[in-house]
This record gives sequence, C-alpha cells and structure tokens, in this order.
Amino acid sequence: MTLCVIAGGVGAARLLLGAQDVAPGSSLTAIVNVADDDVISGLSISPDLDTVVYTCAEAIDADRGWGLAEETWRAMESQRRYTQSAERPDLGWFNLGDRDLGTHLYRTARLARGALLSEVTAEIAVAWGLGLRVLPVSDDRIATRLVTADGEISFQDYFVRLQHEVEVQSVRFAGAEQAEPAPGVLEAIASADTIIIAPSNPIVSIGPVLAVRGVREALVARRDDTVAISGIIGGKALKGPAARLLEELGHESSAVGVARIYAEIASTLLVDDVDAHLADDVEAAGLRCVVTSTIMSNRADAAALTAGCLEATRR
Amino acid sequence: MTLCVIAGGVGAARLLLGAQDVAPGSSLTAIVNVADDDVISGLSISPDLDTVVYTCAEAIDADRGWGLAEETWRAMESQRRYTQSAERPDLGWFNLGDRDLGTHLYRTARLARGALLSEVTAEIAVAWGLGLRVLPVSDDRIATRLVTADGEISFQDYFVRLQHEVEVQSVRFAGAEQAEPAPGVLEAIASADTIIIAPSNPIVSIGPVLAVRGVREALVARRDDTVAISGIIGGKALKGPAARLLEELGHESSAVGVARIYAEIASTLLVDDVDAHLADDVEAAGLRCVVTSTIMSNRADAAALTAGCLEATRR
Repeated sequence: MTLCVIAGGVGAARLLLGAQDVAPGSSLTAIVNVADDDVISGLSISPDLDTVVYTCAEAIDADRGWGLAEETWRAMESQRRYTQSAERPDLGWFNLGDRDLGTHLYRTARLARGALLSEVTAEIAVAWGLGLRVLPVSDDRIATRLVTADGEISFQDYFVRLQHEVEVQSVRFAGAEQAEPAPGVLEAIASADTIIIAPSNPIVSIGPVLAVRGVREALVARRDDTVAISGIIGGKALKGPAARLLEELGHESSAVGVARIYAEIASTLLVDDVDAHLADDVEAAGLRCVVTSTIMSNRADAAALTAGCLEATRR
Repeated sequence: MTLCVIAGGVGAARLLLGAQDVAPGSSLTAIVNVADDDVISGLSISPDLDTVVYTCAEAIDADRGWGLAEETWRAMESQRRYTQSAERPDLGWFNLGDRDLGTHLYRTARLARGALLSEVTAEIAVAWGLGLRVLPVSDDRIATRLVTADGEISFQDYFVRLQHEVEVQSVRFAGAEQAEPAPGVLEAIASADTIIIAPSNPIVSIGPVLAVRGVREALVARRDDTVAISGIIGGKALKGPAARLLEELGHESSAVGVARIYAEIASTLLVDDVDAHLADDVEAAGLRCVVTSTIMSNRADAAALTAGCLEATRR
C-alpha cells in the first residue's frame, strides 16, 4: 500500500507524523509546498519542508509550532545589537534559531554548489532518519505574492512580519507556470494507492502545489483515489490565516468552501465532527463527505486520521 | 593629531586596540583589507573587518584569536548532522559561532538591500561603540587567489580549510585593479598626520590594500610620514603563514624582507629588539630603522607601540 500526501506546513506535518506509522518507509511520500521559501539574510529557507521534517523527526518545538525544540537564539540576540543601533526594524524580524540555522546553512551551501532542492531535502530527511520520502513539489523557485492595499508583498512579509493581520486582495504564485515538478512528484501521484490532501491552507499551502505545471492534471486523473481533509473546523482554522484568506478571496470559510475548492481533484472530504451538519452541502459540492474527528493532538491521532482516509477511499 | 592605520587582521587589530587610546575618536582611521572576504553558505563574511571590530571592542575571543568571546556553536553542531550524514567534508569546515553569525546575518541582509560594505561596517562599528573609524579599503569585491600545485584556491580555502599547509606558487588579488577605494580612504591617507602600516602579513593582508586603485600612489605621496611595523620577528610571524609565504614568493622572511617590500611607501620601519642586528640591512633598503619592543601582549603594549610609531615619524 502506497500513500502520497499533498502537504503544506503545520497541519500536513502533524498528519505525516502519524502517517509514518500507517504507511512506513518508502511507501509514504509527502509532496510539499515551496512557495513560502525565501532568502533571508542570504540563507535559503524552506519553512514547509522544515516543518514537515522537524515534525516527522519529533524534533519540532511543539509549543511554538515551528523550528527545533531546545532551541537557542544567540545569533538573533547578536544581530539585535546592530538592528537596534542602526534603527533597522525592517531587519531581524524573521526568527532564526541557532539549531535551525544549521539546516539553513547546509541547504544554502548545497544549493550554492548546484544541488537541487529535492536532493538537499532528501539528504536532510535521511539525516533525521525519517520514515517517509519528502519531495518539494518543484526544484524551481515559486513565490507566493499577496496583493494588499499597500502593494504586493512576499509570503514571509505577510505571514511573519505582518503576522497576517492585513487584508489580502489577491494571491499569485510567481514562477509556478514555468516550474517543473521535482523528480518523482508526478510519479508519486500517479502510482499511489491513495492520495491525501492534508488539512493545510487551501489557498497559500495547497494552492501553489496545484499551480505547478502538471500537478493539478495528475491529481484530476486520480480523483477517485484522492481524499482531502478540511483544515477549516467550525468555520475556523486551528492556526494561521486560512479562514480569513478564504473569505477575503471570495470563498466560504467552512468545510463546504474547502469542498468546492477541491471538487475537481478529490472525491472525498473528511470533515470534523463539529461540521457534521455541513455533510449535505459538502456532498452537493460533489464530494463524498466523511464525518470524523480531525483534530490531531498526538501521533496516534494522526495515525488514526490517516487510517480514516484510507478507509474512506476504500468504500 | 590624526592617525591612519593600514590594517589586515590579527596584528593590526591588536595595534588598533591600543591606538584608540593614543588617537581617540575620529582622529583614528583604520583602512582594512577585504580580500579575505567571502560568501560562506550564503553569508557575506569579512574576517579582517570583524577581527578589527571585535578586538577594538574587546569582545574578541583572545585565546582563539578570532570570533567573539563567550561564543557557542549550536548552528555548527546542527549543521554537522547533515554534513556527516551526507558525507560532505567539503562543507561545514568554516566555523561560524552563533554570536558571530549575528554579525554575518546583519551584514548580508544590509548588503542584499543595497548598502555599501563601508556603510554596514560603519554601522557595526557604531553598534560596538568603537573609538575609531573602520573603513574597508574598497566597497568592491576583491578576492585573494592563491595558485598551488593543485590549482587556484580562495583565501579561506587556503587559510581555514587547508590551514595554510600548502605551497603557494603565486598570489593575485582578483578585482583589485577595477576596485575603487571606499569613500574616505584616499582622504584619510592624504590628511593623516601619521600613517602606520600595521604588523600584518605583507603579502596577503597589506598587499591587497595596496593593490586597490590609487592606494599605493596615495601612500607613496605620504612616504615621509609613513611608518611600518615588521610583523616578522626573528624570521618568523607570531601567527599565520607570513614567513612561509614570503619565502615561497621569493622574499626574505625577515624584517629586511619586509623593509624591501615597503621601501616605496614607508620611510621608517619598526623592528623588534630581537632583530636589532638587522638595522643596517633595513637602512640599506632605504628605510630608517627603529628598534623597539613590537610584541603586544595587551592594550597598553599596543598604545606604547603606537606612540613609538608617532615618535619615530617626528624625528
């Protein structure tokens, strides 16, 4: 049994932690968003890839929700001497923990020597001894750009610097149309027994994955075997700006809104128990609706949710 | 009284620490080598500038001779997970302490936003509250390249990775001919009452400074007011590859060899007491020879040596 998970950051990572126990080893492939990637102070950062890797390695800082546990902040504290002295609040707002910096230094050095992001990511996954294959959706640069009243900004500007407290008028994924899927991406989608769309942000996490040339078409072809999990529960996202973004961009901030977005690529939607009353509307959108507990508090919850996805596609 | 010091790394930094007490504030300008600068894992590093700044701030790790005191190595330890797993000894050999990383992150971010190296360096010097002006000799990229039997290598490859245990056939300073002096460099040389050439490596520390367009000519014009300090003591360098490099490149590894290299730009050479017997040979090279204690064990020694330089040019 092989499983392919279309993944953003936190929500996907939590699912993948448990999915390792359901589809161990090479039978599990995560295809991960890279449109949040950026270059910060010269370092190539890949937030969603790192969140997936750190979470699956059980090395993530669970309270913070990103970065490594037992982290220290000596580099940031040192940099603050300069940003404060020079009064440069435009610098230093992106937090880079000392241990986390090791990952960015390695990735940046490898990329500078010509390695592909997919190669570096595989090396990083091996170094952590992960029980899954982690693929960036593309080795090419894709950048989520958000149009606000003050102009177009990068994802990290939006998400970290502005703490997503700004109205978004539209979103685009620069470079996505020219981006090629990374080696193995289309094959993983084509060959998996089941494909899960993780409960990540449909707009800025799953959206850029689908925007890469050929990925949406590959998923459309596997619609019968694809199950999505709604990350919108009771009209809200557990974390992050998904609910607000959905509304600002003209969608419904609910499991029904998610169903409509995924109708072309998924045949089943898992919605949380609290959204049981939306089942008819989800089905009206053209997806089978499975009501279950979708909140993952631990690895066992995530394994159970993964098993629920497999069960749903077998029906 | 204004003082201008032509500076490399460690030896110059030690002198400048004391020079701050002799020519305080804006009356002291250091013109610093940048040909050791490199980009390591995406980060712009400026080893000589940082050694000067950290030393003058009394923040340097005195035992190690570079980097910051009370340093930690969490980022490096983290990176080692990847370099070891992937068996990449070609990566991770350049040590970046966590506190030191703060400086590199700030510099890289500022340069990425279009700041000049001289602007960033001034900001860094202000942040440390330094009692001198620190100028990179140029805002343009200059790179020391060393030709070995195995081909041409970068300075950091030579100095850090290979621990300068390789024979050098020739040295060049890529970009130096096109490099413009940074704002203030030629003015500082032209206007200083006294110019000191610090006891740095004549080949790879002072050499690149002299190679920047107009700097050698500016110093030649100030020869009468320029005093050099021999960094070769008893035929050896206190630290680093200066003695070996001098011999490999056809010079004499002695204060006399240093005198011959600087004969065109300096009228006086300070040599250590142990080299008193070389005074006649130094004078034969065309420089007045002043014999004194040149070893700097502390700030007071450095202040005394600076005062000795001023005294020598007043004679």
